[in-house]
Amino acid sequence: MTERSLLNQLVDALRCLPGVGPKSAQRMAFYLLEQDREGGRHLASVLEAAMERIKRCRRCRTLSEQELCGLCAKPDRDDALLCVIEHPSEIVAVEQATDFHGRYFVLGGRLSPLDGIGPEALGLDLLETQLREREIQELILAISPTVEGSATSHFIAAMAARYQVRTTRIAHGVPLGGELEYVDGSTLAHAFAGRQGVEP
Amino acid sequence: MTERSLLNQLVDALRCLPGVGPKSAQRMAFYLLEQDREGGRHLASVLEAAMERIKRCRRCRTLSEQELCGLCAKPDRDDALLCVIEHPSEIVAVEQATDFHGRYFVLGGRLSPLDGIGPEALGLDLLETQLREREIQELILAISPTVEGSATSHFIAAMAARYQVRTTRIAHGVPLGGELEYVDGSTLAHAFAGRQGVEP
Repeated sequence: MTERSLLNQLVDALRCLPGVGPKSAQRMAFYLLEQDREGGRHLASVLEAAMERIKRCRRCRTLSEQELCGLCAKPDRDDALLCVIEHPSEIVAVEQATDFHGRYFVLGGRLSPLDGIGPEALGLDLLETQLREREIQELILAISPTVEGSATSHFIAAMAARYQVRTTRIAHGVPLGGELEYVDGSTLAHAFAGRQGVEP
Repeated sequence: MTERSLLNQLVDALRCLPGVGPKSAQRMAFYLLEQDREGGRHLASVLEAAMERIKRCRRCRTLSEQELCGLCAKPDRDDALLCVIEHPSEIVAVEQATDFHGRYFVLGGRLSPLDGIGPEALGLDLLETQLREREIQELILAISPTVEGSATSHFIAAMAARYQVRTTRIAHGVPLGGELEYVDGSTLAHAFAGRQGVEP
C-alpha cells in the first residue's frame, strides 16, 4: 500500500466527468467493480478509441472520425448558407428543430483573450479562408449573446464584411410559452432591445 | 457511416454508469472530447486496469488488488470479532464512524433465490469455514433489515449457532437528530419493535 490504491485512482479518474463529485464517483466505481465489469471494460475500450480517433472535421470543425464529417460530405446541402455555432452538440439541435439546409462551422468556444482563447483557437483563420474562397451568401451567427459571445459575433461580422458576405444572427428573446414573470432579466432586456415593427 | 459512429458508441457506453441517462451521457462525451481528452485517456486506462486487476480479498471478500486486502493483512485487529456487511463501501463508513477493531466479511449482496443468488454467491461457504476454523467469539451482522436482508441474517445466525458462535445485529431505528414526522414508516416500526428498557 505504498502507492495509492487502484480503487482510489479509479474514483479520482471518474471525477473528470462533468457533474460527478466524490460521492457519485465512489458509487460509480463500486457499481462497475461489483456489478458490471463487462460494462466497465467496454467503456474503457470505447473511451480510449474515441479519444484517439475522433478528430475535428477539416471543413466545419465538428467532431468526426473522418477527415470530412457526415454533413460536410453530403452533396445536397446549400453551400451559400453557413451557420456558425459554438459547440458540435448544437448541430443536432438545429437539425432537429429547423429546416436549415446549409453548412455549419463550429467554433468550439468564444473569444476570451484573458483565458488565452484567440481567433486561431476558434478556427477563425479557417473560417476566413472559407469566406474568401467559397461562394457564401449568408453567414448566420448562432452564438449566445454573452459579453464574450457578442465580442466573437462582432469579430466574425467584421471579417465577413471584408469579403462582402451578409451576416445575420438568430433572434434572442422570450422563448415560446415563456411567461415574462419567469424569464431571466438579460433575456427580457434582449427581447425589448430587439423588438420588431408589427404590420397593421 | 454504415456502422454506428464512435461518438454514439461512447454516449451509449457511458450509460452503463449508475445515474447517467442519455442527456448526461451526451454531455459527458462532448465534454471529454472537446475539453478534456487527457482526462478521458487517463480514465480509460485506469478503468481498464481496475476492471482487470481488482479482485476480491480471499479472506474477507472485499475489493482488493492483493490476494489479502489491507485490513486483513493488518496484524493488530481483533480476530475474535467478525462484522458481516453487504458491500465493500460500508467498510469505509464503519471504520470512519465507529471504534470497531475486528475483522470484516463482505457478502456482496443478499440471499435472493429467485434472482439466483444463493449462499455460494455470497461466499457463505467461506464464512462457514472461518466460523469452523478461526477463533471467532462474536459475529456482528450489519445487514439491512429488508425481507431478503433478514432472511440472509437468519441464515447466517443459524450457521453461526452450529459452531457455538454468538451472533448480534446492529441496531436499526430512528437516526440521531431524525424527527419522527419525517422518518419512513419501516424505520419507525423497527424502532418501536426494538425498544429497550430504560433504567430509572
